[in-house]
Amino acid sequence: MKALIFKGKDKIEWTETMEPVIIEPTDIIVKIEGFTFSHADYRPYLGQDDSVAPDTIMGHEGVGVITAVGGSVINLQVGDRVAIGCIIHCNICQWCLRKAFAKCVNGGFILGTKINGTHAEFVRIPYGDNSVIKISSAMNLADALMLSDVLPTGYENVIKKVDFQNINNIAIIGDGPIGLGILLLINKYNKEVDVYGHHSKKLDYFEKLGAHKGYNSTKTSFDIKYDLVIECVGNDRGTFEQAQQMVNFNGTIITIGVFNKSVVFNLQQLWYQNITVHTGILNVYTLDELVAKIETKEISPMQLVTKAFNKNQVLQAYEAFMDKDMFKVMVKL
Amino acid sequence: MKALIFKGKDKIEWTETMEPVIIEPTDIIVKIEGFTFSHADYRPYLGQDDSVAPDTIMGHEGVGVITAVGGSVINLQVGDRVAIGCIIHCNICQWCLRKAFAKCVNGGFILGTKINGTHAEFVRIPYGDNSVIKISSAMNLADALMLSDVLPTGYENVIKKVDFQNINNIAIIGDGPIGLGILLLINKYNKEVDVYGHHSKKLDYFEKLGAHKGYNSTKTSFDIKYDLVIECVGNDRGTFEQAQQMVNFNGTIITIGVFNKSVVFNLQQLWYQNITVHTGILNVYTLDELVAKIETKEISPMQLVTKAFNKNQVLQAYEAFMDKDMFKVMVKL
Repeated sequence: MKALIFKGKDKIEWTETMEPVIIEPTDIIVKIEGFTFSHADYRPYLGQDDSVAPDTIMGHEGVGVITAVGGSVINLQVGDRVAIGCIIHCNICQWCLRKAFAKCVNGGFILGTKINGTHAEFVRIPYGDNSVIKISSAMNLADALMLSDVLPTGYENVIKKVDFQNINNIAIIGDGPIGLGILLLINKYNKEVDVYGHHSKKLDYFEKLGAHKGYNSTKTSFDIKYDLVIECVGNDRGTFEQAQQMVNFNGTIITIGVFNKSVVFNLQQLWYQNITVHTGILNVYTLDELVAKIETKEISPMQLVTKAFNKNQVLQAYEAFMDKDMFKVMVKL
Repeated sequence: MKALIFKGKDKIEWTETMEPVIIEPTDIIVKIEGFTFSHADYRPYLGQDDSVAPDTIMGHEGVGVITAVGGSVINLQVGDRVAIGCIIHCNICQWCLRKAFAKCVNGGFILGTKINGTHAEFVRIPYGDNSVIKISSAMNLADALMLSDVLPTGYENVIKKVDFQNINNIAIIGDGPIGLGILLLINKYNKEVDVYGHHSKKLDYFEKLGAHKGYNSTKTSFDIKYDLVIECVGNDRGTFEQAQQMVNFNGTIITIGVFNKSVVFNLQQLWYQNITVHTGILNVYTLDELVAKIETKEISPMQLVTKAFNKNQVLQAYEAFMDKDMFKVMVKL
């Protein structure tokens, strides 16, 4: 089969490799129908994450059809169409028993990092019963692909943590796909949602999809106060500082971005502001709810997919995702 | 009347001054039966807070009997015994309408800071209807005094913010009265509560009142993980760092301490730990619930009062509260 293989910093190949086989009785094999990219896929490539070994197949987002199941798989069978969740989990370890699937001692965020991932024609998914969700053949591929990561990230970190009754206005910091997925999920609450980012075309698209106003982060002083501030950028780009500046008394900051260093927390101002800060990670425990939202047309996550490529254009697709005007980029095999 | 008057850094006097009178129709006058001290009372005295003008009567904790009511006071009358909440609030400003009483544009934390406080024989309380709670003559004075600040601080910052179902163990950092008040409030949930502090006698008292174990903060490496960490120290004594070290995946940090500078927030470790941080301030919206807890003997907050003094010993009482083995110190007039 062909797969997108990480070969070390600045080097990636779409090339022939061995097809995966069932190893454990809880495994399933999925023939990939399509996959998408995540910024996390690029961190090893960009030299920002040296935990991924060369020759690993990349990717943790994918949709496909099951071609083999291990002997103890109960709920799935060959022929089922599934969306793969980006968190593999055993459901029986000490962390899984507490629904902390991301900390699963037998799984976690391992696809495309510790084991071969979804950017391939076939992928082996451990603990298949827990780690994928069945979807109908009628679901649009672009909709389905958003189940792997983008939608549960927003849904679990924002919708599941916030009481929208007490919120009048919302700021999303970061004009990327995570923020846009969150916008789609919060539109139903009819709140005023502003977006702060650096890309005018993307900010326009947020406005088109329901945002009240897009602000260019280089041209604002962040002086509007918000009951809920959702930080989706990470690293040390000053966005956590902006969030602290914008959060209202009694307000909430949710930080979903990936940070590689500490930040300054202004407790000298915030200790008496009665605020809440939530840090992220998704446990991917809400796929059934999200499938229902897509099926009932409450949300249309395919709006997140800016461009689709075919199986002869995988490397172009990989490059395209780095373009500043892209939200998600899809490859259909 | 006599009152404890702040005269500037390192200077305080228990001396004769004018009795307060009704100024606004929403005012009440309370003849003080007893008062307690708070560490906040000492910050101007110690030169740590220059926002309090000399000649201000100190104090925001007190219990007494109403001797006069303004013309538009509805729910109170002369002769009512009341506990004074430390947050004055008008109930009609933009913040009060959102239950953010501490931010009340006509009140807030003003007793003993912006207006004369409770450390006197009489005190004027603005917005009396909203800012005190009626208590029975049967309630023990030491119990009642804990309603002003200590109990609502713990109740609103911890009990009202946390779902104890998902919590197995709890750490309280700080062996002072706020932490002890929280212990009394969380005892009913039957969780393992450890306390970290610097005073062996106080740590012993925590254990006597229900804590699982007291740890001397100078002799521990803070390597136990807790689902809930309650930081009650503040400033830059390293306690927020300790809290971050101790918080479990999916866990919560509540910081109640007063901070006068920023802290380091280790998002590089915590962004994927799914944690929650709540910062404090109390809005004193729960006095009715707390009175019920005292009346039904669910809690016995008088256990917080280490020593009582009489009206001839006010300055000794003020000094005594600084002793390292004291929780709360009460003056009975």
